[in-house]
Amino acid sequence: MNMSSIVKQTGQDFSFHLPTRIEFGYGKSSRLAENLINLGVNRVFIVSDKGVESAGLLSGIISSLQDSKIVSELYLEVEPDPSLETIDRGAEYFLSGHYDCLVAVGGGSVIDTAKGIRIVASQGGSIRDYAGVDKIVGSSAIPLLTIPTTSGTGSEVTIFGVYSDWKNNVKVTVTSQHMAPTLTIVDPELTMGLPENMTAASGIDALAHGIETFFSLRSCPASDALATEAITTVGSHLRQAVVDGKNKEARIGMSHGSLLAGMAFNNGFLGLAHAIGSALSGHCHVPHGIAIGLLLPRVVEFNAQVCPLKAAKIAQLLGVEGEDETQLAGQAAKAVAFLVREIGLPTRLKELNVPEDRLAAIASDSFQSGMMRFNPRQPAEADVLDLLKRVY
Amino acid sequence: MNMSSIVKQTGQDFSFHLPTRIEFGYGKSSRLAENLINLGVNRVFIVSDKGVESAGLLSGIISSLQDSKIVSELYLEVEPDPSLETIDRGAEYFLSGHYDCLVAVGGGSVIDTAKGIRIVASQGGSIRDYAGVDKIVGSSAIPLLTIPTTSGTGSEVTIFGVYSDWKNNVKVTVTSQHMAPTLTIVDPELTMGLPENMTAASGIDALAHGIETFFSLRSCPASDALATEAITTVGSHLRQAVVDGKNKEARIGMSHGSLLAGMAFNNGFLGLAHAIGSALSGHCHVPHGIAIGLLLPRVVEFNAQVCPLKAAKIAQLLGVEGEDETQLAGQAAKAVAFLVREIGLPTRLKELNVPEDRLAAIASDSFQSGMMRFNPRQPAEADVLDLLKRVY
Repeated sequence: MNMSSIVKQTGQDFSFHLPTRIEFGYGKSSRLAENLINLGVNRVFIVSDKGVESAGLLSGIISSLQDSKIVSELYLEVEPDPSLETIDRGAEYFLSGHYDCLVAVGGGSVIDTAKGIRIVASQGGSIRDYAGVDKIVGSSAIPLLTIPTTSGTGSEVTIFGVYSDWKNNVKVTVTSQHMAPTLTIVDPELTMGLPENMTAASGIDALAHGIETFFSLRSCPASDALATEAITTVGSHLRQAVVDGKNKEARIGMSHGSLLAGMAFNNGFLGLAHAIGSALSGHCHVPHGIAIGLLLPRVVEFNAQVCPLKAAKIAQLLGVEGEDETQLAGQAAKAVAFLVREIGLPTRLKELNVPEDRLAAIASDSFQSGMMRFNPRQPAEADVLDLLKRVY
Repeated sequence: MNMSSIVKQTGQDFSFHLPTRIEFGYGKSSRLAENLINLGVNRVFIVSDKGVESAGLLSGIISSLQDSKIVSELYLEVEPDPSLETIDRGAEYFLSGHYDCLVAVGGGSVIDTAKGIRIVASQGGSIRDYAGVDKIVGSSAIPLLTIPTTSGTGSEVTIFGVYSDWKNNVKVTVTSQHMAPTLTIVDPELTMGLPENMTAASGIDALAHGIETFFSLRSCPASDALATEAITTVGSHLRQAVVDGKNKEARIGMSHGSLLAGMAFNNGFLGLAHAIGSALSGHCHVPHGIAIGLLLPRVVEFNAQVCPLKAAKIAQLLGVEGEDETQLAGQAAKAVAFLVREIGLPTRLKELNVPEDRLAAIASDSFQSGMMRFNPRQPAEADVLDLLKRVY
């Protein structure tokens, strides 16, 4: 199937921007100090979390900074789904220590926290003030380097940050070009010890980034190219990375796939799975990747009705054989569901202690997400509730 | 054929950087003033050439700037394959007029000229001082906006500038992150009146960017994704754009394909066709796209010996049917040669007034190009001479 025949966007305008410089390589995080010296900084505030520290991923980085006479301080108070307060408190620490650079070492929560700290430290106020799209005026002079320790979030190259407002049980998203990190060092070696469940949850998030960007109303030729390659790459490495975490080729493949997906969705944006997933996490603390894995097959099924050629292409990219486009389109959701089960992720909301009487409120709140409008098929609230009931 | 099975680069390090912001849309160049206002500039030095002016592509842009009270001056002294002197003289004009922004409206020669003027105006000296890789220290504060009027060069998003040293009959290349434009506005409408021969020559250059980047030793997953999509897109629109220049879909397709190829080769670099092409243009003033079209089929044939799976994939992307990889690999060069003939480009060097006794010197000088080392198969000088004789 020729992609040009699937994606008819002649005449459609688009923007594409990917200001973050990418350095990719197995073991490359050991060259952090060299990159910091090139940036002319010498007092570094490292944002991470206790899980990353206890996995031993920080010691090598810190000792290499010491060898290069770079002063560093650790901020480890990042919880999963970081709160607005975590960001604002981090910015206070950053300013009181007169640091000149931020380095994030961790998963999406850690990287999003560092992005938020950078904005609050340079622009003032609270991260809450920047909620929404393009609310940040002027770029920050503080360099931000990101070093992901999972393969999934894509946050290392994106303009988004997601924070939890626990008082109102909602997710707050900050979207701005000024959120883009200066540099990311993607080092698959850091993911070699990632536990099976975290590999599965972050990996399915990467797959969802590829799939939702490919379906997105804001997709463009470059995001299509990156998203389809991400789907193929994640689809062909995720199982192996989960069952055999020490498999270097699988880990490198997942780092590639996750990065490609991040590059894609930074420009093409996401859709329904992320919109509902955001509401699910906001209401019931369901970890992001688990929510996404549970919703993704149903979202693919829902979108296949209006984008059968894209759905057929997704099925092909995931290894489904055949040439008949209608049959292939019908197989896309099944291929995703099969992968979710194979890597051992939950497939029912009730397994996750989500009270059934919250589903209506979750369905309603999913329309608060900025990603809803990029989904190619606009659901009614009843459609979302129906979808949630079917995965309950 | 699954691309992951073709491209085995596990463990290979790469960098990817694409700092130029891209705005794509039919008619979008009319919004130049808006973009300049957002950048806070009001004295604009427009680099273009007499061909672009007489095609009527500047009048709308200039009147929209006047409407917005933006002062602008035209620098039209750009010749094909611009000389070092053209750059240095442009920088003098820029400085003497106290401009605060550069806008390039034209093909590769114009855009490369503006890139060079920006460097000399901000860093001093002559563009000759920056020849080579990473010779520019520090970024320029002068914003550079590029508006391509052809579909081929990719220069609107790349870190390269190519200049002619006519005294020594060589091309001088400047490669630096600081050459990347700030913003490009890619507007397919500007290419609607491009003559048949220029459409063909610039279009085959875009195809070569895709093919050479895909073959390159510096290719990476993101450049592969962009390059393969570029090959498909150019392959499926170039014929139509040449024979029916008013076909909007074909022109938009070529603008997409050329941009994707530029995004790809900015990171994956090029190879043998561009290395020999550079020497051919330096010695005998053969226009770049014509040299590339003439060389490309032979280079694909030469590289297919060591990269048969990539060659097979290229054949598929160009519409060759079949599943047998050896057969497909053998068809790749033929598919390219067929396209070159179909769009009416010269296929013999002797048609271009290249003296046969210059071939040995051209073969020798092709090894001066920085692109030679990225080609997957390293030729001896005799191999290059043989290739040139076969297309004589």
